[in-house]
Amino acid sequence: MRIGELSRRTGVSVPTIKFYVREGLLPAGELTSPNQAAYEEAHVRRLRLIRALLDIGGLSVAGIRDVIEAVDDRERPVHEVLGAAAIRMVPRYDREPGTGIEEARERVTDLITARGWRVHTDGGAAEALATALAALEEVGHGLFAEVLDVYADAAEKVARADLEYVAHHVAREELVESTVVGTVLGDAIFSALRRLAQVDASDRAFGRTT
Amino acid sequence: MRIGELSRRTGVSVPTIKFYVREGLLPAGELTSPNQAAYEEAHVRRLRLIRALLDIGGLSVAGIRDVIEAVDDRERPVHEVLGAAAIRMVPRYDREPGTGIEEARERVTDLITARGWRVHTDGGAAEALATALAALEEVGHGLFAEVLDVYADAAEKVARADLEYVAHHVAREELVESTVVGTVLGDAIFSALRRLAQVDASDRAFGRTT
Repeated sequence: MRIGELSRRTGVSVPTIKFYVREGLLPAGELTSPNQAAYEEAHVRRLRLIRALLDIGGLSVAGIRDVIEAVDDRERPVHEVLGAAAIRMVPRYDREPGTGIEEARERVTDLITARGWRVHTDGGAAEALATALAALEEVGHGLFAEVLDVYADAAEKVARADLEYVAHHVAREELVESTVVGTVLGDAIFSALRRLAQVDASDRAFGRTT
Repeated sequence: MRIGELSRRTGVSVPTIKFYVREGLLPAGELTSPNQAAYEEAHVRRLRLIRALLDIGGLSVAGIRDVIEAVDDRERPVHEVLGAAAIRMVPRYDREPGTGIEEARERVTDLITARGWRVHTDGGAAEALATALAALEEVGHGLFAEVLDVYADAAEKVARADLEYVAHHVAREELVESTVVGTVLGDAIFSALRRLAQVDASDRAFGRTT
């Protein structure tokens, strides 16, 4: 199909499609004449992936490029690529709290050990967790870490459901792409559900009884 | 304290502090002479709140202003302010998928009814959930909605733990601020834990047995 049809089918404007090609997010179409290129179904799917990562996941263009490189890397074992994609999609924080980060890292290592999780204790997700815990401590809510086990239980159940979905519904060549989509959209879904459940819990605790 | 000490204690530069005051995120200090102002402990705490929302929560300056207005609004009933803060902190999506949003909204309404959640079905969190579900459908993972109940179970448990923490550890005047911090940092914590649990689950399913 031509770029105009690709644009209509995905709702992404032609200049934006060209921008994604220049930025290396989308493979160029096959040239059929000096100033015309043909696009395939794969382009439609890739564009939808980019928009999901951008609009729902809130990833930057650079972040999307990282994730797509992991998705396209067919040479590495599945497990390694899944791990790499999951880790790259952890938001990076610009600022490191001056104090408490060492203690927070120790707490994360303890948690991983207690849970028996087979993960690197010095990876991006572990560091992201330590940064958030240190920030909690800094704003005076260190005790919040008491509920960390409830969060970890919930995360285990969700991650198991994620993997079961992937194992049952996804062709092997789409495995990594699906995991990436599920990770980003799954975060957005969980975040929205948590808000709804909080409003409900707050209404039951503090709301009017009428 | 003077602005220099406020800067040292929070790790936020003097120009940035002045920027936050101009933007209405931080109350101005009390003028002690024409070009000198005094800052209190409340400024230290507010600055840490701003940085947590910015660095960990990834909120924009406008988003932080919205949240802080809700925090500072002492006239409204606690439950209403909590609800307003929770809803304002749902990320807004620029783009609405052309198709499937109506079906997704129905699915969200059904879920809320089935769960017995006392929430508005047309609020920000419900709309965010519908947008994410519509995006899933669009990238060909509509079946992922099968695992939605697992997510909703997990969200309920986490929200209940959030509220118990708030009820036990937080003074009433800090209630809203704590909920806001817990919501933003809690999302970051859950997201990091989910990554770790995914890597672990993936290792068990696809990893080498050696």
